[in-house]
Amino acid sequence: MYGVTIHAPGDLRLEERTDPVIEKPTAAILRVSASCVCGSDLWDYRGINPVHNPTAMGHEYVGIVEQIGEDVKTIKVGDFVIGSFFASDNTCEICRAGYQSRCEHVEFVGGAQAQLLRVPMADGTLVATPGIPDADLIPSLLAASDVLGTGWFGAVAAEAGPGKTVVVVGDGAVGLLAILAAKQLGAERIIAMSRHVSRQKLALEFGATDIVEERGDEGVAKIKELTNGLGAHSVVEAVGTQEAMMQAIRSTRPGGHLGFVGVAHGIEIPGDELFFAGIHVHGGPAPVRRFLPDLIDRIWKREIDPGKVFDLTLPLSQVADGYKAMDERRAIKVLLTPGN
Amino acid sequence: MYGVTIHAPGDLRLEERTDPVIEKPTAAILRVSASCVCGSDLWDYRGINPVHNPTAMGHEYVGIVEQIGEDVKTIKVGDFVIGSFFASDNTCEICRAGYQSRCEHVEFVGGAQAQLLRVPMADGTLVATPGIPDADLIPSLLAASDVLGTGWFGAVAAEAGPGKTVVVVGDGAVGLLAILAAKQLGAERIIAMSRHVSRQKLALEFGATDIVEERGDEGVAKIKELTNGLGAHSVVEAVGTQEAMMQAIRSTRPGGHLGFVGVAHGIEIPGDELFFAGIHVHGGPAPVRRFLPDLIDRIWKREIDPGKVFDLTLPLSQVADGYKAMDERRAIKVLLTPGN
Repeated sequence: MYGVTIHAPGDLRLEERTDPVIEKPTAAILRVSASCVCGSDLWDYRGINPVHNPTAMGHEYVGIVEQIGEDVKTIKVGDFVIGSFFASDNTCEICRAGYQSRCEHVEFVGGAQAQLLRVPMADGTLVATPGIPDADLIPSLLAASDVLGTGWFGAVAAEAGPGKTVVVVGDGAVGLLAILAAKQLGAERIIAMSRHVSRQKLALEFGATDIVEERGDEGVAKIKELTNGLGAHSVVEAVGTQEAMMQAIRSTRPGGHLGFVGVAHGIEIPGDELFFAGIHVHGGPAPVRRFLPDLIDRIWKREIDPGKVFDLTLPLSQVADGYKAMDERRAIKVLLTPGN
Repeated sequence: MYGVTIHAPGDLRLEERTDPVIEKPTAAILRVSASCVCGSDLWDYRGINPVHNPTAMGHEYVGIVEQIGEDVKTIKVGDFVIGSFFASDNTCEICRAGYQSRCEHVEFVGGAQAQLLRVPMADGTLVATPGIPDADLIPSLLAASDVLGTGWFGAVAAEAGPGKTVVVVGDGAVGLLAILAAKQLGAERIIAMSRHVSRQKLALEFGATDIVEERGDEGVAKIKELTNGLGAHSVVEAVGTQEAMMQAIRSTRPGGHLGFVGVAHGIEIPGDELFFAGIHVHGGPAPVRRFLPDLIDRIWKREIDPGKVFDLTLPLSQVADGYKAMDERRAIKVLLTPGN
């Protein structure tokens, strides 16, 4: 089968690889229907994360189950399934508390930008849709695998809900879907911090009520201005940089909630500032599995359309163009089809 | 009247000062029944916080109302009252959300180590007891003014409760009272991190079920050992140093809650570690006012005896000995009586 491998920053190749096999009786093999490029893939692509060895790329996927191990009980061959980038047993104490991304037996699922994918702990990781989805639902179901689940977790961690003013820092796919999540969770006012017209448009479609273009101290001042000087009840940080994190902390009112889901790179949070801010902070790699059944249900009923974040679709053979478009911010998010 | 002033690190004096007067119609003047020395007073005493000008010390107090401004409605002359170190209006949006220590009109209440004390916004700050308390209740009521309220907030922020394993980092008065709070909130197991025999004893009296003497990485390893490798559900950080904070973060299980109430000094929290920890963090200056009615009720009914943290009582005239005893950790907490 064919799959995408990164050999060095900027050097992506679609290569023939050995077909994955069932090594443990709890695993499943999927024929990938669609995968995509994640903002976090760009850390490797840009050389910010070192690339020591050729690495199979991609961790967001939907597909049809082609083979299952003998211990797999709930997932069947032929099911259309969605899973998270972290495989989980979904039975340990941490999973039962809703933190499947920190499962006691967690395994990273890599190599999804390929025709076939092995998923460990299939019963605890994969969720089947009610049937084979219509083609137009596939982008949204794929979004649930990571960016929607992550944005949703950000909004939940920020305790977005009725009566709340929510600020979203970051207008990438995760930030945009945190807006959609905040809206679904009933937030009264949703302020998107964005300076890109195309992203502002999608933010408004997803439920943003206000756009703030300013950043840093000016952005914080603007948020204060919009919230009677208090700051927002709920803030989602969906970038992962020092500037975005400080902007998020300073935009949250005392007693408010900050959900941070941007993978932190080089952030140092000053303890005294966090102390005197008096806010709640929660975040980390999203426990997508917690939310998958609910998200699939909302997508299946066409209540939400998170697939709109995919503004470029390419076959695997053009994967390099896809990374480039995202790196240059010409595309919000790139969907990859297994065809050539 | 007489009050304690710090002139330079280590230089404390009981001096004659002008009697406080009602400057705003919402203030009250108390005749202080008891005050005390706070761990945070030691930051000045030790010269870690700079002392630029002679400063009136003390921010924990109980007393009898001697005079009220014309706008004060709920507090009467002759009431025995307790207030927090932060005066609050208790009516603004932030106060109503339970964050009176970040009230929109917050004022610090300083100079409580004195015979008389002016408290701003008396209606929003002070809570009267049901009557004049018996003398033996005064230490516990005084504790409610800060250390009990702060320890309680730490336990609440850490979501201590039934079925939970709680770790308390720090065996000062706040840490010890976080143990008492966790017990009152129904925690199943309470692990005190302490290496001082006298404090371990009080920790056990307050409800600790386990003592861990190890610190740093060894302390974390011990906590993991006691919690099936997972870490605690709830951790209270009651010190305010880098080591204690990292020990607290690393002792919390994924999805668990860290309440931090040690006033942060020079702490830098690495964002990537916090991200991958997947924990909830909440803390800051305790909104003591939120808890005062409940705490007074529990003390009045003699359900709790937080006054046990005072292991040295001195008259104001011997205040310097009191600071020295706490600085040298010979005393857990020093109660100051207004007499000579």
